[in-house]
Amino acid sequence: MDTRVESDSIGSMEIPSDAYYGVQTLRAKQNFYITGLQMNSRFINSLAQIKKAAAVTNRDAGNLDENIAEAIICVCDEIIAGKWHDQFIVDPIQGGAGTSANMNANEVIANRAIELLHGVKGDYSLVHPNDHVNMSQSTNDVFPTAAKLTVLSQIPRILFQLNRLKEALNEKGNEFDGIVKMGRTQLQDAVPIRLGQSFRAYASVVERDRKRLEKAEKEMQSVNMGGTAVGTAINVSPVYLKNIAENISRLSGVKVQQAQDLIDATQNLDGFVSVSNSLKTCAVNLSKMANDLRLLSSGPKAGIAEINLPAKQNGSSIMPGKVNPVIPEVVTQVAFNIIGNDMAITMAAEAGQMELNAFEPVLFYNLFESLTTLENAVTTFVDNCVSGITANESRCKELLGQSVGIATALCPYIGYKKSAEIAKQALRTGRHVEEIALEDGLLTKQSLDNILNPNTMTQPRM
Amino acid sequence: MDTRVESDSIGSMEIPSDAYYGVQTLRAKQNFYITGLQMNSRFINSLAQIKKAAAVTNRDAGNLDENIAEAIICVCDEIIAGKWHDQFIVDPIQGGAGTSANMNANEVIANRAIELLHGVKGDYSLVHPNDHVNMSQSTNDVFPTAAKLTVLSQIPRILFQLNRLKEALNEKGNEFDGIVKMGRTQLQDAVPIRLGQSFRAYASVVERDRKRLEKAEKEMQSVNMGGTAVGTAINVSPVYLKNIAENISRLSGVKVQQAQDLIDATQNLDGFVSVSNSLKTCAVNLSKMANDLRLLSSGPKAGIAEINLPAKQNGSSIMPGKVNPVIPEVVTQVAFNIIGNDMAITMAAEAGQMELNAFEPVLFYNLFESLTTLENAVTTFVDNCVSGITANESRCKELLGQSVGIATALCPYIGYKKSAEIAKQALRTGRHVEEIALEDGLLTKQSLDNILNPNTMTQPRM
Amino acid sequence: MDTRVESDSIGSMEIPSDAYYGVQTLRAKQNFYITGLQMNSRFINSLAQIKKAAAVTNRDAGNLDENIAEAIICVCDEIIAGKWHDQFIVDPIQGGAGTSANMNANEVIANRAIELLHGVKGDYSLVHPNDHVNMSQSTNDVFPTAAKLTVLSQIPRILFQLNRLKEALNEKGNEFDGIVKMGRTQLQDAVPIRLGQSFRAYASVVERDRKRLEKAEKEMQSVNMGGTAVGTAINVSPVYLKNIAENISRLSGVKVQQAQDLIDATQNLDGFVSVSNSLKTCAVNLSKMANDLRLLSSGPKAGIAEINLPAKQNGSSIMPGKVNPVIPEVVTQVAFNIIGNDMAITMAAEAGQMELNAFEPVLFYNLFESLTTLENAVTTFVDNCVSGITANESRCKELLGQSVGIATALCPYIGYKKSAEIAKQALRTGRHVEEIALEDGLLTKQSLDNILNPNTMTQPRM
Amino acid sequence: MDTRVESDSIGSMEIPSDAYYGVQTLRAKQNFYITGLQMNSRFINSLAQIKKAAAVTNRDAGNLDENIAEAIICVCDEIIAGKWHDQFIVDPIQGGAGTSANMNANEVIANRAIELLHGVKGDYSLVHPNDHVNMSQSTNDVFPTAAKLTVLSQIPRILFQLNRLKEALNEKGNEFDGIVKMGRTQLQDAVPIRLGQSFRAYASVVERDRKRLEKAEKEMQSVNMGGTAVGTAINVSPVYLKNIAENISRLSGVKVQQAQDLIDATQNLDGFVSVSNSLKTCAVNLSKMANDLRLLSSGPKAGIAEINLPAKQNGSSIMPGKVNPVIPEVVTQVAFNIIGNDMAITMAAEAGQMELNAFEPVLFYNLFESLTTLENAVTTFVDNCVSGITANESRCKELLGQSVGIATALCPYIGYKKSAEIAKQALRTGRHVEEIALEDGLLTKQSLDNILNPNTMTQPRM
Repeated sequence: MDTRVESDSIGSMEIPSDAYYGVQTLRAKQNFYITGLQMNSRFINSLAQIKKAAAVTNRDAGNLDENIAEAIICVCDEIIAGKWHDQFIVDPIQGGAGTSANMNANEVIANRAIELLHGVKGDYSLVHPNDHVNMSQSTNDVFPTAAKLTVLSQIPRILFQLNRLKEALNEKGNEFDGIVKMGRTQLQDAVPIRLGQSFRAYASVVERDRKRLEKAEKEMQSVNMGGTAVGTAINVSPVYLKNIAENISRLSGVKVQQAQDLIDATQNLDGFVSVSNSLKTCAVNLSKMANDLRLLSSGPKAGIAEINLPAKQNGSSIMPGKVNPVIPEVVTQVAFNIIGNDMAITMAAEAGQMELNAFEPVLFYNLFESLTTLENAVTTFVDNCVSGITANESRCKELLGQSVGIATALCPYIGYKKSAEIAKQALRTGRHVEEIALEDGLLTKQSLDNILNPNTMTQPRM
Repeated sequence: MDTRVESDSIGSMEIPSDAYYGVQTLRAKQNFYITGLQMNSRFINSLAQIKKAAAVTNRDAGNLDENIAEAIICVCDEIIAGKWHDQFIVDPIQGGAGTSANMNANEVIANRAIELLHGVKGDYSLVHPNDHVNMSQSTNDVFPTAAKLTVLSQIPRILFQLNRLKEALNEKGNEFDGIVKMGRTQLQDAVPIRLGQSFRAYASVVERDRKRLEKAEKEMQSVNMGGTAVGTAINVSPVYLKNIAENISRLSGVKVQQAQDLIDATQNLDGFVSVSNSLKTCAVNLSKMANDLRLLSSGPKAGIAEINLPAKQNGSSIMPGKVNPVIPEVVTQVAFNIIGNDMAITMAAEAGQMELNAFEPVLFYNLFESLTTLENAVTTFVDNCVSGITANESRCKELLGQSVGIATALCPYIGYKKSAEIAKQALRTGRHVEEIALEDGLLTKQSLDNILNPNTMTQPRM
Repeated sequence: MDTRVESDSIGSMEIPSDAYYGVQTLRAKQNFYITGLQMNSRFINSLAQIKKAAAVTNRDAGNLDENIAEAIICVCDEIIAGKWHDQFIVDPIQGGAGTSANMNANEVIANRAIELLHGVKGDYSLVHPNDHVNMSQSTNDVFPTAAKLTVLSQIPRILFQLNRLKEALNEKGNEFDGIVKMGRTQLQDAVPIRLGQSFRAYASVVERDRKRLEKAEKEMQSVNMGGTAVGTAINVSPVYLKNIAENISRLSGVKVQQAQDLIDATQNLDGFVSVSNSLKTCAVNLSKMANDLRLLSSGPKAGIAEINLPAKQNGSSIMPGKVNPVIPEVVTQVAFNIIGNDMAITMAAEAGQMELNAFEPVLFYNLFESLTTLENAVTTFVDNCVSGITANESRCKELLGQSVGIATALCPYIGYKKSAEIAKQALRTGRHVEEIALEDGLLTKQSLDNILNPNTMTQPRM
Repeated sequence: MDTRVESDSIGSMEIPSDAYYGVQTLRAKQNFYITGLQMNSRFINSLAQIKKAAAVTNRDAGNLDENIAEAIICVCDEIIAGKWHDQFIVDPIQGGAGTSANMNANEVIANRAIELLHGVKGDYSLVHPNDHVNMSQSTNDVFPTAAKLTVLSQIPRILFQLNRLKEALNEKGNEFDGIVKMGRTQLQDAVPIRLGQSFRAYASVVERDRKRLEKAEKEMQSVNMGGTAVGTAINVSPVYLKNIAENISRLSGVKVQQAQDLIDATQNLDGFVSVSNSLKTCAVNLSKMANDLRLLSSGPKAGIAEINLPAKQNGSSIMPGKVNPVIPEVVTQVAFNIIGNDMAITMAAEAGQMELNAFEPVLFYNLFESLTTLENAVTTFVDNCVSGITANESRCKELLGQSVGIATALCPYIGYKKSAEIAKQALRTGRHVEEIALEDGLLTKQSLDNILNPNTMTQPRM
């Protein structure tokens, strides 16, 4: 392998000649072989967006040579277009609060810019990773801001899918609005409900999740760019400080603004915790809903079987004809994973010390996974499950007819105690609640017909 | 012991004659001996608030006899004033989705109302726990609504303490604004910062926590009263349905409104998860801050010792003269407990099934503890720690003077690489950064004096 | 209120004259108003056990005056017998790594001993909390050792209840061994199983939990008594160091031994994490089992209803005749709480710093709750649920008869694909699997009778 | 793209002609686009190990044609050697309790075996994924058993690294045994300790973690192979049932045995929780240790600086000369991730229902990540951090000399109160403890020299 030699404060190393990354990246690669995975691709793009905006801002402030700036901007555009991602080789879980990720970007951009300027890779006198690419920046403002841009690019995708889910659920709500069935509390027969009401309730909770995520999204828009090392804006010119956030917004199309308190914004990660919280809450609601769908479609013969989920694949390698609720199952699994990720995120945020939180990398690793898997899970949930659900109307009717839960409706007329006696007798004998109540002579046939109409039980009396 | 006999669907039991609770409460007591603790006192009051509002609403709707209503209302006022709490004997962690807690309230109110009406305890023909006290209600709307009233009564108290904390921190921010010290990232010397900036940053994050909690508070205002068993408002009159939420607001002074989708509001507990999320995020931030205070006050001789925490108690049973950062320690412990509680809350919310979540009691148990301990922790944090902190200005100066972190300020003038060499030389030799830089002849004494002034490093260059 | 004045390094305070606690306890009380609860009663006893053993050991080593020792021992015996617990007033969640709890014990014991020696409370020249009661000890060895004694006193009680649960489940396993029913995977009909097999499987997993807890128990037996402040045994005589652990074992009846590495044992809390882990795993298994029981008993008419749980209380305040699975519900809630506690315990253990973990109090608070609630939950699970479960044999038969899951048994004879076709046809037409298979002519009636016998499907072919 | 058509119960699909996977795999791929990652490579090998052992066992039992068996065995060996892993295309997080992963293996093996037998891919009459490759198996025994083999292949690698860590720590323990320094509790100066004692204590806790993991390893050896769908061994011959576990052991070299209760072993995942517990506890201990190293090496000028960590990379993109504790930082991040994973694992295990746990995929996904990252983190911890640590002996001496913590040693001679006064005076005046004590005349110079010798304070008095 052809190599070039690069050196830093620690010493010198051989770097593959064709590598755009440099010595600091390679050291990091060796120090942090942890997950064996690459950094998130959207995050790499976000780093490039920031480097581009910084070059523009430094150039316009008169601090960065125009040619160097142009070269840096050009490389950043290449990265955003998908090039050189294979040169980002440091592990997403890395020590050093993101310095390695930032230096990986700085070195790749510097070397590619050197190439564009007809220099030789590694000759940092042309374009220097720290002095030019990282000018007016610190890992401590670049790294969390790149993470925020990444989150901001992902949230609208989730909101879109959540909206589709809400609409699919509302459609089912309308479709199933005429189907009365037994409602269940604590898995025990309760009182009648319409299947459509259940699905509209699911839509209601999804809408709430959507709104919460929108609120958390706003927290991501406050960035600490310009604060550099600890938020005091050391080594930053007034012009750069004033313009960098606006330039990021303008050039990336993602709206951000500079935090009011840059020191706070550099050391505290609570905004990310907020986003994770809203994902976690959404996960809780989706998993509850997915579990309901599994319960309601259980069977097909020895379960509840009030609804049918679309059959998406053979259910078993040994049991022929078995079809399983695989999509709700994967939704619940994604929920568990997101809840676990939230725990790691919480611990990482809590562990910050003084002017910086050194545990950002593991926080971002978990948060990005939560975002991606939630988007994907909701997508398959809508497309491969919810939109194809059908109702077993006759089964709903059959189970409702057998149940004694409708005795509840007698309470306002004959009291709790008498109603309980009728319910127990119905259960014991298998006879119908109305029949027994009539026999007791407490209410007339006409009253009972009216009171015990399951349909009218599913909405407030007028 | 004198007893009376009461019976229910399960059979009959002997109840102590002087007990206001009845057979269902006693069964629950025996079924659920779990924590051995009492239910939260504010929660008992909230139950009474609801029972009172229901009696008023039922009376005004013409469904509840005026005398019975008056008696019920009178008992509820007694409970809210602190009476009869010892009659609430069921464990806070209980099966049955809160039915036992609700029946405990229904029975205590019924028996005390019977007494007020000159009847004999247990003679439910006068006032019936289910038919009268629980009229138009179900555990499934009463129990979560009582929890929401409880949370709503607690949040303003926390907001008040968080505000005091913010103000105390801002005061320290002003008091310490002139003290320059070494900033630290990853526990390593970084660049100068003013101690006042650190404390203002703490104030900033607390303010954000306050706002988050205010947002979560709003979620608690949506209640499912009137939905009864599953949200379909079975057994509820239109008048009651229309007025119950407003009556609760009016009579309790806690603003709530009826949820738009009562079915959703009956089965989903995500609003409680949201509150817990905001407490958890606040806990994360407080614990980070508490840990910083412990680090900054470490020593007194073999640590950082840049600040002094007020000495609040002897620090050791064996080491004389030792004073420990006991208040920050308790704040962090409360944070851990709140984070653990959030996990239990998350699991409970996820486990809901169909029309109800049977795991509300453990969710509320954990949430109430989080609320109470957070309020108490912030209170002692302000009073016994933050407001008494003093700075060791000379120590700050001493550590800053020894450090080489100021070499960062040279980068814009002589480049990263050269600056690094100076920093390393300073560290190796113990000589001062300015001295070495001057020797190198790259910058004049005047420039260096200007560039390396620690004070100017702590804010943007003009 | 009559008071006496006591003073410490911080200053002087008025103490109620009749209080046995002193100035340090009262300061702690004021610093840490957090949960508002008392410390665990077993833990207070454990502190007394240690103080007694220390007095004996110091006396025998010739370091403690015989009269003082006798007085201390006498007070400890009183505490162990249940006296003076109301004098332990510091909150279980407290800063200071347990110093306040230890000093609370030292002061109560000293003042009561002074009283026994006809002195005046507060006159510590007779018996000094630090010099005599705490002689040769530090909070840093006393506090975690007291926690270990507490855990060790509790684990056998849990093991006993788990054993009862195992036996109750095995009994049901035998009772239900003849009942064939449809097995379910992913809530979908799978292949036949005997109800007795299910209950024996529950017994198997409980037995594994029992063994894990026994292993964790062993970790608790290693204590750091004699290590004092940081594990270096400062201020401890060789005789005391050699004998203290043995004396604790002998006098308390709880077997412990001195840790090999006292420094490690003083700073690391992983043994407690291990215990919590085993409780958590048990909680996972119990909750899974509890949820199964809820599913299997769902209905009574619109659910699975293969088993009946004993009716322990009315299920609803509004729905007459409803009986809910309240005991499994409380078991699952306790499980969630234990899992949440484990998270707090994990965070507390991780947060230790250098020679000590300052977060022991919140760890112990959570661990003690997990232990107590697990014992109580298993007790009610056995007594009020498992031992009273009955089977609905006819319902099992009915559901099994309707199901097509038995088509699995055809695979080895006619292949997966053909079997799947038969299963699908049976589902679509409602006809019986055997009937369709016979029609297809691939197998004789006799073969089919043999192959499709549900009973033989529940065990390996011979 | 050339395609072939395959069909299953759901319908037919076009499969790329050169693909070894088939229709069921492709459906799964489309249903579960979640993480976008591949399944764990060791897990794919484990599936092949099981398929091979099953073919051998079925062949020897006379149930599987010898030619087919040979072909299957040959393919499995290819997979184990690293071939065809790119054909395993289903997402690690998948619905269906692993059916898709199992069918992916069945289809790849079938098609490659068909190829070896000179057939055409997709012509399952030669080798059928279900009837031949999956013969006598169900996903429900194959999938968890493959996970156990994977864990068992990984644990020895972790044990090896933990052992290296222990040895490296013990070496440092010996190297630093003569260095006395100030011990710290609650970050405050306590009493002297030798640096070597600290490192030996770290070694002690690592050894305990090693033993715990060894215990958990044993739980993995019990497998449910032969139990098939629900543990009743449906469709399994007696010979296969008897031999399969032994054959897996013999052929894979990984020792396993058949679980006693196959029904329990099929539905409960507590063994995996146990492994995760032991990883979590190890993570807790490693993170505590890593944080200690960061604290002790803090500075270099404005911190504790008692030790130096090897410099492994530039610490900052902006601050020249800064070197950060990047390896301890990554260790702590891995710890947080493992603790988060444990939460997901716990929730997945808890959510099992009746005869199966449908959430195995997400459990395994998290567990495999915990295993891999722990191994990698410990490796870099040893190689890039612990083994290169050096001590700053003069700094240790300097801080010890300034401290007043040694006043503790006076207590046994002059009492706690008097010692506290001396300590406070020393702190206030900056004078030395010995000097003040001598002045007080309570002890002779000779006694004080002896008592206050820091070295003798670090071990029990003889």
